Amino acid sequence: MMKEKPFLLLSNDDGFAAKGIQELIKVLRPMADLMVVAPSGPRSGASGSITSEHPLRCKKIESAPGFSLYSCTGTPVDCVKLALHDLVPRTPDMVIGGINHGDNSSVNVHYSGTMGVVIEGCLKKIPSVGFSLCNHAEDADFTPTFPYIQRIVEEVLQHGLPVGTCLNVNFPDVKDLKGVRICRQTDGVWTNEFVKSVHPRGGNYYWLTGSYRNDEPEAQDTDHWALDHGYVAITPTQIDVTAYTLMEQLNHWNWQL
Amino acid sequence: MMKEKPFLLLSNDDGFAAKGIQELIKVLRPMADLMVVAPSGPRSGASGSITSEHPLRCKKIESAPGFSLYSCTGTPVDCVKLALHDLVPRTPDMVIGGINHGDNSSVNVHYSGTMGVVIEGCLKKIPSVGFSLCNHAEDADFTPTFPYIQRIVEEVLQHGLPVGTCLNVNFPDVKDLKGVRICRQTDGVWTNEFVKSVHPRGGNYYWLTGSYRNDEPEAQDTDHWALDHGYVAITPTQIDVTAYTLMEQLNHWNWQL
Repeated sequence: MMKEKPFLLLSNDDGFAAKGIQELIKVLRPMADLMVVAPSGPRSGASGSITSEHPLRCKKIESAPGFSLYSCTGTPVDCVKLALHDLVPRTPDMVIGGINHGDNSSVNVHYSGTMGVVIEGCLKKIPSVGFSLCNHAEDADFTPTFPYIQRIVEEVLQHGLPVGTCLNVNFPDVKDLKGVRICRQTDGVWTNEFVKSVHPRGGNYYWLTGSYRNDEPEAQDTDHWALDHGYVAITPTQIDVTAYTLMEQLNHWNWQL
Repeated sequence: MMKEKPFLLLSNDDGFAAKGIQELIKVLRPMADLMVVAPSGPRSGASGSITSEHPLRCKKIESAPGFSLYSCTGTPVDCVKLALHDLVPRTPDMVIGGINHGDNSSVNVHYSGTMGVVIEGCLKKIPSVGFSLCNHAEDADFTPTFPYIQRIVEEVLQHGLPVGTCLNVNFPDVKDLKGVRICRQTDGVWTNEFVKSVHPRGGNYYWLTGSYRNDEPEAQDTDHWALDHGYVAITPTQIDVTAYTLMEQLNHWNWQL
């Protein structure tokens, strides 16, 4: 009997038409059945946001045996929720976000719509992985990432991931990738985050921008170090954000009213 | 010499006009100088999202000695970023989110715009705390939370918080709070997340909703247990989301291409 193909749910934050997700589809289609439920347009920086003030709409764009693609008016997380609630024929074997146009390592994990997708998959207890390339360009070259993406998906399908954990995979924008490094999240800060201009009718307006500062450039176990040195950075990520080390300390503060 | 009053930056995700933040202002104004930079309207479920596709605008609504209030077109995180970049006279002693109309315990931390505020403050290495009441109503009664909020802010001002950690404080919606419990994040899942309806011109539309399922109702060290039993739940939270326990394991997978 032929083994059933794995079934993967894909989304992103750059929108269904972005090159990154279209390339991801090409890479994964030979090895799996795919359902793509992605935002109708760019949702960069959407983080884990959800839409509660407006209704969502969702449109089937493409459909073929073992493949379907939907465009959804909501956020990346909305896409995953809606797919799991109403569109999938069965629980996906994996939820995959990306390939993102831009770096989601270090503190960027907190702003990333791609990682929003992945964390949502993880919250639903499905093995989930996000792929991001450190290049924001619309026509970025994703080719060098393909063999790594295939391997990472194969490995996750084979081993699974412990419930509550997922993977944040970032690729440096280089042709010759040096291999994989398992990393921790780099400590860094965004600075100079706005450009201020004067509105034609008076008052200011602001564009969000900024420079990233790595606060531990020497630490070789970080995702940012790996990327700076040409490695694929795999940062295992968890959804339990409790600061356990702080619990004991807080129990000694004065809470008695 | 008179000691300088602490300086607190406040924001939320329900908008500057919401009762929750207006009540928070009342509670904190006697003990600190305040700058409030909050969204112009509701941004519930904004998580850590940022606005990169549109410019932001920001308007001063109110100003008095030791007090100012701005309305901002962006997300909760945008508000904190903009305040720190362009509005504050000095680095705030604390960043405070809330009081949120609704529960931000358990997995809700990942969707919460209030916790977006707090995590952003934390990413900027400022002691940060989020306050949320388990009641979504616009006219919810926040009064029972006031003495606890004062005490928690006093304690954080006195002790500080380790860099990279912040507090997620949730209040049950009861008159007689039983005291404080230091908790961990509950493992739970949202289910039945959409109501589907038919659009007047055909096709479906979806409203996000859902039921929360606690996956460890017996665990007495969780924030959800504390809330269920009438306690103020303080969940220390961290911005490093690395799944350290998974790193060793992943190093044994087959990454060789």
